[in-house]
Amino acid sequence: MAQEKEVASGREWRITMADGSSEALAPDAGFAKIAWLALKGLIGGLALKVWKFLKKAWDLGHNEPRKVIHCLKVGMALTVVSLFYYMRPLYEGVGGNAMWAVMTVVVVFENNVGATLCKSINRICGTFLAGFLAIGVHWIANRSGEEFEPFITGISVFLLASAATFSRFIPSVKIRFDYGIMIFILTFSLVSVSGYRVDKLIDMAGQRLTTIIIGTSLCIIITMVICPIWAGEELYMLITRNMDKLAGSLDGCVAEYFNDSGGLADSDKESDKKVLGYKCVLSSKGTEEAMANFARWEPAHGRFNFRHPWKQYLKIGASMRDCAYCIEALNGCVNSENEAPEFTKKHISNIAIKVSSDSSMVIKELAKIMKTMKKSSTIDFLVGEMNNAVLELQEDLKSLPALFIPQPLQEAECPENKSTEQDPKKAVPLMEIIPLVTLASLLIEIVSRIEGMVSAVEELAGLAEFKSVNDRKTNQNQTTNKVVPDHQGALQRV
Amino acid sequence: MAQEKEVASGREWRITMADGSSEALAPDAGFAKIAWLALKGLIGGLALKVWKFLKKAWDLGHNEPRKVIHCLKVGMALTVVSLFYYMRPLYEGVGGNAMWAVMTVVVVFENNVGATLCKSINRICGTFLAGFLAIGVHWIANRSGEEFEPFITGISVFLLASAATFSRFIPSVKIRFDYGIMIFILTFSLVSVSGYRVDKLIDMAGQRLTTIIIGTSLCIIITMVICPIWAGEELYMLITRNMDKLAGSLDGCVAEYFNDSGGLADSDKESDKKVLGYKCVLSSKGTEEAMANFARWEPAHGRFNFRHPWKQYLKIGASMRDCAYCIEALNGCVNSENEAPEFTKKHISNIAIKVSSDSSMVIKELAKIMKTMKKSSTIDFLVGEMNNAVLELQEDLKSLPALFIPQPLQEAECPENKSTEQDPKKAVPLMEIIPLVTLASLLIEIVSRIEGMVSAVEELAGLAEFKSVNDRKTNQNQTTNKVVPDHQGALQRV
Repeated sequence: MAQEKEVASGREWRITMADGSSEALAPDAGFAKIAWLALKGLIGGLALKVWKFLKKAWDLGHNEPRKVIHCLKVGMALTVVSLFYYMRPLYEGVGGNAMWAVMTVVVVFENNVGATLCKSINRICGTFLAGFLAIGVHWIANRSGEEFEPFITGISVFLLASAATFSRFIPSVKIRFDYGIMIFILTFSLVSVSGYRVDKLIDMAGQRLTTIIIGTSLCIIITMVICPIWAGEELYMLITRNMDKLAGSLDGCVAEYFNDSGGLADSDKESDKKVLGYKCVLSSKGTEEAMANFARWEPAHGRFNFRHPWKQYLKIGASMRDCAYCIEALNGCVNSENEAPEFTKKHISNIAIKVSSDSSMVIKELAKIMKTMKKSSTIDFLVGEMNNAVLELQEDLKSLPALFIPQPLQEAECPENKSTEQDPKKAVPLMEIIPLVTLASLLIEIVSRIEGMVSAVEELAGLAEFKSVNDRKTNQNQTTNKVVPDHQGALQRV
Repeated sequence: MAQEKEVASGREWRITMADGSSEALAPDAGFAKIAWLALKGLIGGLALKVWKFLKKAWDLGHNEPRKVIHCLKVGMALTVVSLFYYMRPLYEGVGGNAMWAVMTVVVVFENNVGATLCKSINRICGTFLAGFLAIGVHWIANRSGEEFEPFITGISVFLLASAATFSRFIPSVKIRFDYGIMIFILTFSLVSVSGYRVDKLIDMAGQRLTTIIIGTSLCIIITMVICPIWAGEELYMLITRNMDKLAGSLDGCVAEYFNDSGGLADSDKESDKKVLGYKCVLSSKGTEEAMANFARWEPAHGRFNFRHPWKQYLKIGASMRDCAYCIEALNGCVNSENEAPEFTKKHISNIAIKVSSDSSMVIKELAKIMKTMKKSSTIDFLVGEMNNAVLELQEDLKSLPALFIPQPLQEAECPENKSTEQDPKKAVPLMEIIPLVTLASLLIEIVSRIEGMVSAVEELAGLAEFKSVNDRKTNQNQTTNKVVPDHQGALQRV
């Protein structure tokens, strides 16, 4: 902006110098023009920024219409609560305390049902407990004479506020009752220092509690009836979505390594996005924990009971992250500059791709178990197949040295390598197959971590009492639909 | 509890049956005793739970005295604000609105200075803007006649509340102004539906703003003067502490692999804790982001300027996490059941330990740069040494195949392996050295990620204008103090 202004000013001065005749007027006109240009630039820049901001906001609303619906719900709840002020009978009933209803709606209304319920219950309990306690303290202070009253009130506020603030640091208290404790401190301080007589206080406390209950009820009704967003369902969707992403990443990562030159430029971005799916898993810990915490407050909804084992979802999430860490390392190794020679790559590419596709199939099956909420009859088979593929990979790795310092006896064991264009007498240094060995080793580690995922999901299936599928037909169909890249491997497995 | 009760009840009945004589009294006495025992059990259980909770709370306070100080600060601020009610002149000045001062203190007072400032400024700006706008809307509504007034007020509340709620979803707005927008909605709704006349409203708005400013000023003064906790310093400490942990993990992880049987049972827990230090790095993303966000609001303090590049700390944190992912994978591989044979382990143990100690030394030097806030003159040298160690590791890996299918020519190249107890004719399958190769490969990947850390820290040093050290002596001392396990390597480096 400053630069633009300077340039403009320079031009202005040159014009006035060239003109010469209107020397007295020129500086004034010049300044006006400078100011005008600067203002125009400023407004233009501002308009551009506002435009960009609005565009971003529009995209956000367009991509996630549920957020827009939430905003309309908040607007609606506030407008409804305003009616308390305009309808005379209601106004008489709750008096000037109707303000607390408005405040409750603004503070308590959250994006999902669980959070709203959590805050509502916290607010009601905190207000009730603190009011009760404060009236008691106030009564004692009243009895003890005028000179002691301020001291008793002051000391009780100091002690309770300190203790309550301290309890907010205790993790188990913090995740559930943080908001309630804040409201407790607030209500206690307000009531105990308000200086009213006790009988008036009890009236006021009753009104206050009524308005808060009205406000929270309104919030709860609106949030649960109109397009409800359940924290539990959000968590559930997040976990299943992340599982699909993880499977895609694993597949994409290994495939990218083995068909480096095969990809088209068009689909590169698409596949890059797919490969980097695991990053979502790495960064979703905070969201998962928050959602699991809110989900506990929610009543039964959809396919979830009231006591659905939400904590188990955190375990599944943790096992997925364990897996994602390894995929991260794998991705790092795949993208490193050290490339293994083509013919050694070919030697284990089939089986490595098979391991990755088998394990991503296991992850997809786990996602299916979660999505259908039914125990899978194929999961054991798929895990077995994945483990078999790992054994095959290990076998193939064992035969690798035969490629480097070939001996006639060992070469007979791997006939598909006879037609390699390389000189069979040349020893390939270990150095060159390091990326390959690392990839294989990380794949094996990933497989063992996927087993952690399997047991976490199976534990969930037990806790949440998923139904088991006894339909043999679908089972068999799935088996025959599977890609079997290696005929010999398929025979071994049977 | 239920079980204990049942057992007690069973015993009671047996006693009464054996007694026989007092049949009429026995059941009554029995029930009383049962009730007494149940109550005792209940109270005992409760007391135990309360005792455990208090113990936990005491430990928390004992370990982190700053949290206790924070609690006392909150208590103090609230007690001071209560004075507004007891001192008559002040009471007359701010009227019944003194309630808002109490509320402000409860809501705004946060654990660190940045968070308190952020909330204070948000609260003041939100209240001011919303009050200004609401009075304007109210004025218009007043002019437009009695039948239109509720509609204009209602629609304005609906539209503004919806729009403001939506803006809370926009990430750039959310991280800075979330609280301010909530206060905006709250104040706007309260003022615009309050139904007072405009002149009275302006009075009230003035009082409200005054009390809020009094409350926030009190909070800011107390939080900044008495044992201040700066968000920026917390972030800084977190990052440097995590760096030390990362270095310790890396060292410990590799050392653990190579001296498996050497460890004592006593120090096992200690070393386990050290090895798992990287887990703190993996899980500290949320804290880092929150702290960096609050740190931006803080004035200059200690060694940090007002515009200290806090964002760069997030980049450093991200690069540390990149590194920690690889250490996670490394730790997984190290703990896997597949063990390499001892003599191959020995072959690269020296150089692998050297790579890990060199790289952890680089991390420690980075931590030192952060701690002293001075550019290091040895960092380039250390990075060079680390890279040399990697080259040596790669060289050693190249000579590994010679161990498996020994050939007289190649064996001459590594004379230190002549004295191995293994049969030199037996070829060790590649399978058995896979963990070793993976470890080496991951170490190499970790080194490349440490270079990412180095450039992130150097960028910070540039942005925050760290001073450079020109003292040659300390530089040389550090170099000679370093452990040089391999004489040949040291020669190569010079």
